[in-house]
Amino acid sequence: MTDLNPIIADRFTEHLEVFGRTMEHMDTIQEIAYRCKAALENGNKILFCGNGGSAADSQHLAAELICRFKKERRSLAGIALTTDTSALTAIANDYDFESVFARQVEGLGRTGDVLIGISTSGNSKNVVKAAEMARSIGMHTIAFTGEGGGKLAELCDITLAIPSNVTARIQEMHILAGHIMCEIIEEDY
Amino acid sequence: MTDLNPIIADRFTEHLEVFGRTMEHMDTIQEIAYRCKAALENGNKILFCGNGGSAADSQHLAAELICRFKKERRSLAGIALTTDTSALTAIANDYDFESVFARQVEGLGRTGDVLIGISTSGNSKNVVKAAEMARSIGMHTIAFTGEGGGKLAELCDITLAIPSNVTARIQEMHILAGHIMCEIIEEDY
Ligand SMILES: O=P(O)(O)OC[C@@H](O)[C@H]1O[C@H](O)[C@@H](O)[C@@H](O)[C@@H]1O
Ligand SMILES: O=P(O)(O)OC[C@@H](O)[C@H]1O[C@H](O)[C@@H](O)[C@@H](O)[C@@H]1O
Repeated sequence: MTDLNPIIADRFTEHLEVFGRTMEHMDTIQEIAYRCKAALENGNKILFCGNGGSAADSQHLAAELICRFKKERRSLAGIALTTDTSALTAIANDYDFESVFARQVEGLGRTGDVLIGISTSGNSKNVVKAAEMARSIGMHTIAFTGEGGGKLAELCDITLAIPSNVTARIQEMHILAGHIMCEIIEEDY
Repeated sequence: MTDLNPIIADRFTEHLEVFGRTMEHMDTIQEIAYRCKAALENGNKILFCGNGGSAADSQHLAAELICRFKKERRSLAGIALTTDTSALTAIANDYDFESVFARQVEGLGRTGDVLIGISTSGNSKNVVKAAEMARSIGMHTIAFTGEGGGKLAELCDITLAIPSNVTARIQEMHILAGHIMCEIIEEDY
């Protein structure tokens, strides 16, 4: 085989380091999972939002709820606010891009629902505005962020702040945590 | 703190085990990255497809190319075949759900382009059909699968078969590998 590009082993090592530090946040993952589970059992729903890779994670996790994660059970109420390109382009065009998620939260969110805002920096303005709107409606607010948590953490009831500043590594831990959350949510159905 | 739900530590352990086994496939990740890089440098494009969490990964990776991964550089040609709900519903409704990706490959794919089919089982029929169509056009075919690789691996030039049978764990390694691929693709721009 040709020589291995050093990026590959470096990124595996980086992943392992961030994984090790994320293990210290198992209690936060549990708190998030139980908060979501209680809301769903109450007849409430979970809204997800984020940009780029975190939009992908929003859709991934909403799909695990509405379709299934591992188990045959009833469909659970998860909605990604990242998928309706008509709503996204209309809101960005008529209002501004910062409002693309907040306006959907205003229309769809109800007291007792959960907003999960996913942002590796914790500072993406459209996610921050969505959390502000969710708070004002009396929704539970949960943040998946990187180290420090950014502005989003200040607005949220619970923050899973992955101890890294590297977007890709943070996202890799978000999806691990999200998968565990889904497994705990569906275990009692 | 309340007792920790045993699912949490178990899944962290499972992730670590699969991560360790995936390390043995660094050369395959390199081969995939270099194949995609060469195609892009040739003016070709990369098409991604998959279902559920793998649809999310398709969009995640296409966005890293068309927007950016880490670096300021020109936009690169990545397209997720999972996002156009008008095309997806029309094809499923007028033809069948198995053709949702293959028909898009027929319309959009050109000789020298790359199809990356993502399927943890390797057996999702719409992804398998997309790979068949891609081959018939003279596209490069790459599979991201789980252990064994399924039918998809038989059709593809290169397969990254993550050594696990657990969908969630396989997806967690797909996104790590996909991130590394994007970093290698963009390093020379
Ligand atoms: O700070 P965030 O809210 O996570 O926002 C980052 C996103 O806009 C995207 O930026 C780049 O395109 C890439 O790093 C993506 O992976 C990322 O999701
Ligand atoms: O075998 P695959 O092609 O990976 O297909 C699996 C998907 O249809 C989805 O199935 C369930 O909904 C979940 O396990 C998802 O995460 C998965 O992507």
